[in-house]
Order: sequence, then structure tokens, then C-alpha cells
Amino acid sequence: MAHLSIIGTGTMAQAIADVARKGGSTVDLIGRGDTTPVTGDVVVLAVPYGAVAEIVEQRGAELAGKVVVDITNPVDFETFDGLVVPADSSAAAEIQAALPDSRVVKAFNTTFAGTLTAGTVGDVTTTVLVAGDDEDAKRLVSDVVDAAGLRAVDAGPLRRARELEALGFQQITLAASEKVSWTGGFAVVA
Amino acid sequence: MAHLSIIGTGTMAQAIADVARKGGSTVDLIGRGDTTPVTGDVVVLAVPYGAVAEIVEQRGAELAGKVVVDITNPVDFETFDGLVVPADSSAAAEIQAALPDSRVVKAFNTTFAGTLTAGTVGDVTTTVLVAGDDEDAKRLVSDVVDAAGLRAVDAGPLRRARELEALGFQQITLAASEKVSWTGGFAVVA
Ligand SMILES: NC(=O)c1ccc[n+]([C@@H]2O[C@H](COP(=O)([O-])OP(=O)(O)OC[C@H]3O[C@@H](n4cnc5c(N)ncnc54)[C@H](OP(=O)(O)O)[C@@H]3O)[C@@H](O)[C@H]2O)c1
Ligand SMILES: NC(=O)c1ccc[n+]([C@@H]2O[C@H](COP(=O)([O-])OP(=O)(O)OC[C@H]3O[C@@H](n4cnc5c(N)ncnc54)[C@H](OP(=O)(O)O)[C@@H]3O)[C@@H](O)[C@H]2O)c1
Repeated sequence: MAHLSIIGTGTMAQAIADVARKGGSTVDLIGRGDTTPVTGDVVVLAVPYGAVAEIVEQRGAELAGKVVVDITNPVDFETFDGLVVPADSSAAAEIQAALPDSRVVKAFNTTFAGTLTAGTVGDVTTTVLVAGDDEDAKRLVSDVVDAAGLRAVDAGPLRRARELEALGFQQITLAASEKVSWTGGFAVVA
Repeated sequence: MAHLSIIGTGTMAQAIADVARKGGSTVDLIGRGDTTPVTGDVVVLAVPYGAVAEIVEQRGAELAGKVVVDITNPVDFETFDGLVVPADSSAAAEIQAALPDSRVVKAFNTTFAGTLTAGTVGDVTTTVLVAGDDEDAKRLVSDVVDAAGLRAVDAGPLRRARELEALGFQQITLAASEKVSWTGGFAVVA
């Protein structure tokens, strides 16, 4: 399969590493302060949105030519009432603008970590919605997901990251208000 | 239960009427050109978003004091690439601004008509996400849904209509591109 470098060692970094390994991909996890160059064809930014700018500054040149996966939900955690990105944009679009020589893919922001690990949301196979403008990049990420027995679904161009981030935010508000659990949320029924 | 006036006689008008009747509510359906005054405590605008302005103009005074349910997905059907409302707003917020003396509730825009009729999305009970600023208005709409054996979930203040409309739009793009069927889509797993 693929070789992934995951920046971050937290909940999502671990969950995505498990998914990737399950499907036969190899994974490097890169912790904070670790300056090892990324070697993966696919680089997953498994950090809070607020940490992305620093990583872009440090590793921008290194990320050129790579598939960069943005998994963030850029929620304004001070108000819990909106996102910190412009209303007509998205974290993914901002990251693509900052990394013009990378191919940015939005994925994994609509799946709680627990649903990646379990492989299901309720009785439905966990579905990773994947948006991006580069078809090969989307296919690479989707293949990693599918190989693990999860389901990747093409959610459209990178512009749809705006909708995916709205979905991720709404899902977080539902879990935070105990309307759904952190192992539930939006299942995608074919 | 409640008394609903549904403006529109199309697919969603019929589906919501069936849900309401199933739960013991009474329903009037009001067709185009019908100038009968709305008598329901709850008035559902079951028309395309583009038709709402005309209805507001004709019936604005009549809608004062009522719970007005906005079910629209204000998709730009020319481009199929975004919504026709401002990025930081929503159809529901625009309607609330146009009807300051009504209590606007966003609901039913994230459930395909077929899932209201079937009562399930896959094996999951169809869940109607309900957003609004007036708790009594939300409860009234939620009770109509719950009484029919569906599940209403409080999705937050009317500001969350922005997220619900993004979700509705994303779901439509997935169905239009045959990633999900018109009887599937986003199930809400508790
Ligand atoms: N958790 C979920 O279910 C879920 C679901 C979908 C999307 N997401 C998104 O996934 C991302 C990661 O979330 P998470 O739940 O995995 O969080 P987490 O468990 O708190 O892990 C965050 C990781 O980011 C690292 N980090 C934080 N600030 C950093 C900085 N300035 N520079 C470098 N590394 C930094 C942390 O390092 P330290 O350990 O050294 O602090 C940690 O490894 C977030 O954007 C979140 O919105 C999460
Ligand atoms: N279908 C779904 O699964 C679904 C799901 C969620 C939300 N929605 C939303 O629900 C709303 C209704 O959709 P639908 O599927 O029920 O559409 P539909 O079957 O085409 O019905 C539309 C209804 O609106 C009426 N109408 C259209 N233009 C009008 C105008 N200028 N003045 C008065 N009435 C007018 C139509 O009357 P005529 O028959 O005389 O044209 C018809 O009764 C839309 O906003 C849609 O985005 C639909």
C-alpha cells in the first residue's frame, strides 16, 4: 500500500496509524519537536488546526510534491459557536493556499477516533469522506481506508471541505451535548 | 398534538404531512395560488428556497406569532457547487430576518423525503435535526416528529442552520453522484 508520515502522536494519529497498518501501509509517527524529515508519500496533519501554521512554516519545503491530509475540525473552542476559518473557506483551503506545491486532501474530520478503531458507526461501516482537487491524491488516501475494511467515499472537490467541516463541527456539538456518543454520530448509509 | 399548515403540496409536503398525521397532528396542505389563511400554530414552508420570498411577501403578517419551519436546502442548482445564501448565514437566518415576529425553526432539511416515509435510514431510526432560538418552538416541532416514531434531536440555536444546510447540501451531492441512494444518506447514530 502506501507509506504514511503522521505528524502528531495523539488520539487521531494513533487511530489513523492503526487503520493504515491494518490495510498494509507503513507508518511513521512524528512527535512534537521531532525534526526528522517526513518520508511518506502521504503526510497526515494529525494536530489541532491551531498547530498547522507552525508545521507549515517548519516543513513547507519538505511537503512540496506530497499528498497532505488535513483532518482538522477548526472549531472555535472559546465560543464553541463557530469555526475559526473564514465562512466561505475551510481549514483545508487555507492549508492548500499555504502549501501550493502540495496536494491537499480533506479526510477523517467527520469520523470520531472511536469509529475508526471500531470500524463501525452503530451497525454501519465507518465511512471516511474524502474531498480534494487531485484525483490521484484522493485515490491514494481512499485506498488506504478501503484496504482496512472501512469505506472511503469521494465527497467532491476541495471546496467541499467547507461542508465537511460544518458536518464535523455539528457532530462535535451533538456529542458535546450528549445527543450522540463519541462512538456514534453521522453514519453514511449507502 | 399540533395543528400544522404546510405551504406546498410536493414531495416533502406530503412526507411531512404523513409524519404529522401519524403522530396525531392535524394538517392543512396549501397549494400554489391558494390564498386561504394559514390556521396552524406551526407553518411549514415546503417549497424551494427561491419561492420563500414571495410567500413571505404575501403572508408575512399572517405568519406573525407562528412557528415557521424552514426545510429548504438553498442549493445553487445552476452550479451545484454551493448555496445561494451568504456563506456566514443560512436560509433559516434570512427567513428569520424577513419574519421578525415569527419563531423560525430549521428542520427536515437533512432527511430525504424517502427516509421520512420509511422511518429509517438503513437500520437507524430517521432523525430530524432541529435548530432554533425558541425552545418552545423547537419542542413543538420535535414532539410532532417523536410522536410519529421518528427521532427529533436538538441541533442547537438557529445559527446551526448554517451547518445543517451544509450537511443537507453535502448529502444531496453524495446522492446526485450515486455515492448514497435517495433513501440513504446521513443516519444519526446515538
Ligand atoms: N479526536 C477525534 O475524534 C477527532 C475526529 C476528527 C478530527 N479530529 C481532529 O484531529 C486533530 C487531532 O485531534 P486529536 O483528537 O488526535 O488530538 P490530541 O489527542 O490532543 O493530539 C494532538 C496531537 O497534536 C500535537 N500538537 C499539538 N500542538 C502542536 C504543535 N504546536 N506542534 C506540533 N504538534 C502539536 C500533540 O502533541 P503533544 O502530545 O506534544 O501535545 C498531539 O500529538 C484535530 O485537528 C482534531 O480536530 C479529531
Ligand atoms: N425532496 C427531498 O427529499 C427534500 C429533503 C429535504 C429538504 N427538501 C426541501 O424541501 C423543499 C420542497 O422540496 P420538494 O422535494 O417537496 O419539492 P417539490 O416536490 O418540487 O414540491 C415543491 C412545492 O413547492 C411549490 N412551489 C414551487 N414554487 C412555488 C412558488 N413560487 N409559490 C408557491 N409554491 C411554490 C410547488 O408547487 P407546484 O406543484 O404548483 O409547482 C410544490 O408544491 C425544498 O426547499 C427542498 O430543498 C427536500
